Amino acid sequence: MSSNVWHGAGRRIYIQEVGPRDGLQMEKVFVPTPQKIAFINALSATGMAKVEVTAFVSPTAIPALADAQEVMQGIARTAGVVMTCLVPNVKGAERAIASGADELNLVMSVSETHNLCNLRMLREHSFAGLRDIITTAQQGQVAVNVSLSCSFGCPMEGDVPQDEVLGWVARFAALGVQGITLCDTTGMANPAQVHAMVQAFKARWPQLGLTLHFHDTRGMALANVLAAIAAGADRFDASVGGLGGCPYAPGASGNACTETIVHALAAMGYDTGVNLSALTQIAAGLPALLGHEMASPIVKAGPSCQLHARPASFDDIRARAQERWQAAQAAPAC
Amino acid sequence: MSSNVWHGAGRRIYIQEVGPRDGLQMEKVFVPTPQKIAFINALSATGMAKVEVTAFVSPTAIPALADAQEVMQGIARTAGVVMTCLVPNVKGAERAIASGADELNLVMSVSETHNLCNLRMLREHSFAGLRDIITTAQQGQVAVNVSLSCSFGCPMEGDVPQDEVLGWVARFAALGVQGITLCDTTGMANPAQVHAMVQAFKARWPQLGLTLHFHDTRGMALANVLAAIAAGADRFDASVGGLGGCPYAPGASGNACTETIVHALAAMGYDTGVNLSALTQIAAGLPALLGHEMASPIVKAGPSCQLHARPASFDDIRARAQERWQAAQAAPAC
Repeated sequence: MSSNVWHGAGRRIYIQEVGPRDGLQMEKVFVPTPQKIAFINALSATGMAKVEVTAFVSPTAIPALADAQEVMQGIARTAGVVMTCLVPNVKGAERAIASGADELNLVMSVSETHNLCNLRMLREHSFAGLRDIITTAQQGQVAVNVSLSCSFGCPMEGDVPQDEVLGWVARFAALGVQGITLCDTTGMANPAQVHAMVQAFKARWPQLGLTLHFHDTRGMALANVLAAIAAGADRFDASVGGLGGCPYAPGASGNACTETIVHALAAMGYDTGVNLSALTQIAAGLPALLGHEMASPIVKAGPSCQLHARPASFDDIRARAQERWQAAQAAPAC
Repeated sequence: MSSNVWHGAGRRIYIQEVGPRDGLQMEKVFVPTPQKIAFINALSATGMAKVEVTAFVSPTAIPALADAQEVMQGIARTAGVVMTCLVPNVKGAERAIASGADELNLVMSVSETHNLCNLRMLREHSFAGLRDIITTAQQGQVAVNVSLSCSFGCPMEGDVPQDEVLGWVARFAALGVQGITLCDTTGMANPAQVHAMVQAFKARWPQLGLTLHFHDTRGMALANVLAAIAAGADRFDASVGGLGGCPYAPGASGNACTETIVHALAAMGYDTGVNLSALTQIAAGLPALLGHEMASPIVKAGPSCQLHARPASFDDIRARAQERWQAAQAAPAC
């Protein structure tokens, strides 16, 4: 970790694409399996460190992801791209492992209220269930990541103390999980809070994998990414086109937009490993895939290095400006 | 300047609202003078350090601001709020001074191509004209700020070297202006570039007023604000609701959104002096004033400290979750 976050200096930042799971599960249309597979293949070909491919959940609960197994079995496997799957229980874990998942992603909330609303369980009950999944994964020799929702605040409870969050991290660390994702589920995190949280995390668990998952609800996602990097983080979830959103937070916008984060980090000299132009092309294709507009700034405006043409009349404008300037210089001083 | 940008620690950041001039001049509707005055009065009452009120320009060129004099004479003057007016020439400067402007804001571009397209003049010709305005302002004992467009890149030329930008700063500093605004006219600036530029500026001119003016075209505005603060800046232009935009940059979004910047800085512990809830109320009123939707995240989602109600069925959800957890604990271990 360099002490100067403002200059990337070629440092590696790992980008983890969550659009296929976290994004598509919020969409009203069912994206047909072959198109999902093509979407995931295109994303992993851009150079992502990880792709959250799908979720092995009840097809009644999330019909958009009912084809989890077909998707996992249909996608191309690229060296260096970890294929992770969300699983809510042991049955889902077994299916994900059988389908060749590199990693299982487990979820619970550090806010009791949010956990009840989102998962209908007390946190202790969720923890007990996740402990069983972790055992299953360890028997299957598959890595486990635990995503902790509301790590930077709960839209219903408000502040969640840093010690409360780190207490849950400690319990999962003790179970031997490979990674933890601190999720800013409804875009409440601010850079001061993120910096303090990441510093505290890295001080206690320097070797435990840490991902930050931000939402851009209040326009702070990129600033939060930089705050996290400044405190020693190097892994970030993001969603192409900003796909995804959040229930229980009216007006909330989606996940941090992958191409916005990659564009900024690349401009700052970081090495994200991601091909920005390929990624932007995928984002530009989302309206056709999903049937609605997306609000990707990079799709809309292009990268900052992309030049625009001068007006057709530019040579005339310049010639006349030069004449006027010569005339002004020739005029007698008053 | 503290060394840790991530913790505001009560440090003062000065917010300068540019919506009434930079924003309204891009709008298709003419906002009636009394409504403009009410808009400006409401903004200055939120605690802005400066408001760019209007421009004393040809009413043919910018009909939206044809009522500059009436607006300046009609607004309330609040102690501590600098009322600045854009002026393009000596005649405009004289009118602004006669109307009671506290400061004249002058504009030219550090990109020859952009200056030709935007002002139809060579940069040297613009400089000569601004020098005459500065003389007028000094005779009238009114402060002068010079806004340098394209300080972080030109959408047609591309990179503008830092030395080129600082060369123009040096020429205006030598004329005794009170402030310089480095404008990221089309949202090309990235935090690495901003940090380096502000460091270089502060090293050469520690006493010269410095404002940063960012656009959020590519989602980097807030991150750029933090990069600038980290390098010693403390003054930022922003536009309520993100009003404003930019010609010569297709797809460009508007200015950095004032309430987004104020919200984030306040959450980080900075003292912006601005009443966020009053400001957000003004932003929420913009669609009625202008006849079109705005994309303000803070209007849409509320501040991060604003809590949302639990679902009506929450007590039931919790009671059933408690029952299930008790049942699970009572079950014999297998």
